[in-house]
Amino acid sequence: MPEKIPDGSIGLVKSSTFHFDQPLSLACGATLDEYELVYETYGELNTSRDNAILVCHALSGTHHLAGYYCMEDRKPGWWENIVGPGKVIDTNKFYVVGVNNLGGCHGSTGPTSRNPETDKPYGPDFPIVTVGDWVESQQRLSEKLGIEQWAAVIGGSLGGMQVLQWAIDFPDSLRHAIVIAAAPKLTAQNIAFNEVARQAIRTDPAFYDGHYYEHDTIPESGLRIARMLGHLTYMSDDIMAEKFGRALREDTINFDYGVEFQVESYLRHQADSFVGTFDANTYLLMTKALDYFDPAAATGSDLSAVMTNVSADFFVLSFTSDWRFSPQRSHEIVKALHDNDLNVSYAEIESHHGHDAFLLPLPQYLSVLGAYMERIATESSI
Amino acid sequence: MPEKIPDGSIGLVKSSTFHFDQPLSLACGATLDEYELVYETYGELNTSRDNAILVCHALSGTHHLAGYYCMEDRKPGWWENIVGPGKVIDTNKFYVVGVNNLGGCHGSTGPTSRNPETDKPYGPDFPIVTVGDWVESQQRLSEKLGIEQWAAVIGGSLGGMQVLQWAIDFPDSLRHAIVIAAAPKLTAQNIAFNEVARQAIRTDPAFYDGHYYEHDTIPESGLRIARMLGHLTYMSDDIMAEKFGRALREDTINFDYGVEFQVESYLRHQADSFVGTFDANTYLLMTKALDYFDPAAATGSDLSAVMTNVSADFFVLSFTSDWRFSPQRSHEIVKALHDNDLNVSYAEIESHHGHDAFLLPLPQYLSVLGAYMERIATESSI
Repeated sequence: MPEKIPDGSIGLVKSSTFHFDQPLSLACGATLDEYELVYETYGELNTSRDNAILVCHALSGTHHLAGYYCMEDRKPGWWENIVGPGKVIDTNKFYVVGVNNLGGCHGSTGPTSRNPETDKPYGPDFPIVTVGDWVESQQRLSEKLGIEQWAAVIGGSLGGMQVLQWAIDFPDSLRHAIVIAAAPKLTAQNIAFNEVARQAIRTDPAFYDGHYYEHDTIPESGLRIARMLGHLTYMSDDIMAEKFGRALREDTINFDYGVEFQVESYLRHQADSFVGTFDANTYLLMTKALDYFDPAAATGSDLSAVMTNVSADFFVLSFTSDWRFSPQRSHEIVKALHDNDLNVSYAEIESHHGHDAFLLPLPQYLSVLGAYMERIATESSI
Repeated sequence: MPEKIPDGSIGLVKSSTFHFDQPLSLACGATLDEYELVYETYGELNTSRDNAILVCHALSGTHHLAGYYCMEDRKPGWWENIVGPGKVIDTNKFYVVGVNNLGGCHGSTGPTSRNPETDKPYGPDFPIVTVGDWVESQQRLSEKLGIEQWAAVIGGSLGGMQVLQWAIDFPDSLRHAIVIAAAPKLTAQNIAFNEVARQAIRTDPAFYDGHYYEHDTIPESGLRIARMLGHLTYMSDDIMAEKFGRALREDTINFDYGVEFQVESYLRHQADSFVGTFDANTYLLMTKALDYFDPAAATGSDLSAVMTNVSADFFVLSFTSDWRFSPQRSHEIVKALHDNDLNVSYAEIESHHGHDAFLLPLPQYLSVLGAYMERIATESSI
């Protein structure tokens, strides 16, 4: 392994693409006649095909869970802390799969892809996709990969919602469901934050009703606002106090609208990095998938009733300072699982990192998730 | 009283303006050679001049505390719930004064006022004003009104910060300080929310670096985002769940970017009403005054140390579900007052209304504030 790749990393990785030509009917009523899913795999599928782990990504995540694309790559995959040889999700034991969701902007078919009907990018004409649509498409990916049953489907935040939907829609296709820092549906406050972000993007004059590609521009200001706001809600008040407090960037107050406080500098930096790598139409789609997610809607919000066919064992995790999807929201999931006499483990991790905690290598988190993964490994033919 | 004015209202009121030609040196280093303050008074100043109450306003407040300007006026002043004959701040007993702060957009000198140097609106050239500057200007207003000592200075949120500053800067000029839903300084999270709002305004192409008056436009999109975000943080998760939940505006989901959920409709409506009545440059100034407020900065954030000269009796109030300025922030103020052996009453009001609670007629709130006001009345020559 070249010296530049840190010890413990899976190292250099490559993504792959599957083309699907079986039409996919979406919840919104539209149909995607064909589409592609980009994915990455780590480790080896064993001969019993029972060591496969699917990792579902959150709002701004991708299929690139771990490792580096090249030696010049400055950042590894988004779950490098968790996925790798000897790590909590051990690629020496498991065959781990990451997939970019439909509507994404990292290789799977989405707003930036060519619309076969117009030969232009889909842009705003890409249909609104739901968590259920994603899970359906992921199930088709499973078939292509020859995986009849996942040892576990795992995800944090919006990824955790996909895990819930998997357990409901394809109960026989997963043995374990690991739901991290998620909720069974958004609250009005959650929706409101999403709506503010969407309005920021959609009212940016450079948005052109979503047709900005044709104008050779991007709604940069709107996307920056959306990212700053999102990022701010992923952190707790406490961690922001610890990281930044009221520290000034310079020694004195300048009494102007430049950066005065470190926290302003941090937010602007986060926005800068984001606008170069993320598509605004995708951001809109992802927030809509969040808003619409409510697997129990048809049963009048009775989550227990919608889970009667679920058979997976569950591990539900929450973080004490997460105010976006608080531990209480995880309790709702745990209750519905208990109501159905399912096997459920629950861990409330003490952390002051807010919602972001699910991405961080917090010792207690790594420890309990590692122990659960070990249990899965023991059950599998590993 | 005409039938349309609700019972218990102070009724029809008028605002007045004082012109000040004694230059005011501001914390930022600039000087306002002359300026105007618009104010409103309710009730009568007694002959002992000891029944005067100053009410300081919050971010989007004004000098118009109570009553109506005309019979067609659809809304009364912003503290109609509290200020009026027989109300908690009883205008039959007290002489109540509301003043629009410098930098405001409701009559006092601010960005929309004529800059005597250019004969155009100040716009972005209006200097950044601080809570200390406001209090200094309010002290000058007191002199004009012939009030040597306020029976009480009262305010909620940013208004409460002005009350703290009054007690520190002019200890002999007030007998009681009533600080509601405030904090001794903003946290990094508070600053971050303000910064996102500012960026939304400042990156709106219609902002023209603050010179939008000359372009006959306003940065409407940015101001809308700022208001939606602000408003959202003034409510608690619980009250939003109760008010809106996941209720849809129509019966079914439309899978588009129109209004799907009631909460989206509410936020857009709030934004609509705001942009017609509030100036974007003023919004920026107000958020900066919030960010910079830190009366203990010079003592290394030792609030107790900066309060050694304070002599007012304090009543500090907080609301349990206020996550913008939580009860814990009020505790910091109470502790500093106790450290200085000052008379302090503290009430933590049980409410699920979030920060907005200070504007609402909550029975427990009205009751404790009313009792304290009664105590002040008893002490005065009323």
